[in-house]
Amino acid sequence: MELIDGNAIAKQVLAEVAEEVAALESKPCVTFVRVGEDPASVSYVKKKQRTAEEVGIESRLKLMPEDTTREELLAVIDELNADPGVHGILVQSPIGQIKDEKEIFNRVDPLKDVDGFNVANIGKLCQEDPTAFVACTPAGIIELLARSGVQTSGKQVAVVGRSLIVGKPVSLLLMMKTKMGDATVTVCHSRTQDLGEVTRRADIVVAAIGRPHTITADMVKDGAVVIDVGINRVDDASRKRGYRLVGDVDFDAVAPKCSHITPVPGGVGPMTVAMLMKNTVKAYQLSKV
Amino acid sequence: MELIDGNAIAKQVLAEVAEEVAALESKPCVTFVRVGEDPASVSYVKKKQRTAEEVGIESRLKLMPEDTTREELLAVIDELNADPGVHGILVQSPIGQIKDEKEIFNRVDPLKDVDGFNVANIGKLCQEDPTAFVACTPAGIIELLARSGVQTSGKQVAVVGRSLIVGKPVSLLLMMKTKMGDATVTVCHSRTQDLGEVTRRADIVVAAIGRPHTITADMVKDGAVVIDVGINRVDDASRKRGYRLVGDVDFDAVAPKCSHITPVPGGVGPMTVAMLMKNTVKAYQLSKV
Repeated sequence: MELIDGNAIAKQVLAEVAEEVAALESKPCVTFVRVGEDPASVSYVKKKQRTAEEVGIESRLKLMPEDTTREELLAVIDELNADPGVHGILVQSPIGQIKDEKEIFNRVDPLKDVDGFNVANIGKLCQEDPTAFVACTPAGIIELLARSGVQTSGKQVAVVGRSLIVGKPVSLLLMMKTKMGDATVTVCHSRTQDLGEVTRRADIVVAAIGRPHTITADMVKDGAVVIDVGINRVDDASRKRGYRLVGDVDFDAVAPKCSHITPVPGGVGPMTVAMLMKNTVKAYQLSKV
Repeated sequence: MELIDGNAIAKQVLAEVAEEVAALESKPCVTFVRVGEDPASVSYVKKKQRTAEEVGIESRLKLMPEDTTREELLAVIDELNADPGVHGILVQSPIGQIKDEKEIFNRVDPLKDVDGFNVANIGKLCQEDPTAFVACTPAGIIELLARSGVQTSGKQVAVVGRSLIVGKPVSLLLMMKTKMGDATVTVCHSRTQDLGEVTRRADIVVAAIGRPHTITADMVKDGAVVIDVGINRVDDASRKRGYRLVGDVDFDAVAPKCSHITPVPGGVGPMTVAMLMKNTVKAYQLSKV
């Protein structure tokens, strides 16, 4: 069993990005928009800014109050869209009291949409257009597989979860006519009748359900590759903060059966930030075309 | 075994569209752009115009010579996009000598894109946005299933083919959180290792490969629903025109095993034109919002 070390692979990717950035004429710039003081958002954005600095990317932070209206946020996005000094824009979710996140994400200029949530980039992904920005988590999953030497062509893949952020884009990536695609992908979800039956025949299982320990040992075949996208908090009195993070996979029981598996934390998570940096460099390059 | 009669169902849909159109304040208008004299295009566009007339939709035809350049066609599309009297635009493929069809389709105003090929509409489909225009063939497949009383929720579906026009959008529709979605979808293609193994466990098989007789009797389980999207010409000296049309499914051998099956011709084909009319009414309605 080989543990896929997301921290180590993310570090590799970031080293390559730093090298690429150093060779550019000027610094790529990403602007984060954060609405309110959601503690998870504060810490995510901090982490992203720190990483940007490490690889030589300029980052800016636009802070807006919790009660920001839809109109105010759209106006800020329009301003950033129009600013030639800003190559990438990321609106951190959750966005305060604004209900329709899709409208917000769709307002970001598709060429600055480093988060890959804009409708145009999702469409481009379907069209297999190389200028598409792919959302960071699914892009990170492909990178993890590629750098772990996992072949996808002709393989059976079970993607568990059909979200717009992970399940659908990672499925589209894995079925594409590309080196890290060409897989036979089954998308499972809450209405799937016998989930175990589907995952058991899969060579690669991508778990993106958001419920701890959903993928158990009996649901995975020997030698499978398991990618765990879940980040769930479970109560743990033995920890100082009162909880620990676990994935969607029952890691201890599943791992011994796998050829490769990602841990949580330290698997997919670190890749997300690394792919954001890669996307920012891509946005910079597209702005020069 | 129940034969799914695409002609009869299309007629139903068209009767409903005609009723809807009659109740509108003014006539919806669709403009067809045809480049060159490809005989199949000539006949398709004629059929679409005749159907439009039948249901009370105004149709216009913009004919352009075979050697039309990319720039000339884009200019025509821009003009139609700007014309408030035109609600729907359809650029008939193939488009003469123009290589990049995607660029052409993506230039059509997403709100007039009755063909559903624009990148924005494909993205909206992923986002499960009800304003998305869904390409006519996949939309027609869903309509056929719905009107034949086929349930999709929780069912295993094998979609054979991963094209942007059929395979991908029909897969996205069938996995959506909707009444005619919620299926567990596997997308198969040329790199799938054991196609029969996948199709044999499917409750519903959608064949969109473009190769005659690919789905044989041993590849389908008893009681399956089979939707045949293929339209292939095979030589047939006994016919006056020297060929006959067959689907991707070995109909004679497969049909006895099925609970429902579509014939070719007379299955999915007629639905495509019907859904185009439905999309045109939708475009008209969106233009009034």
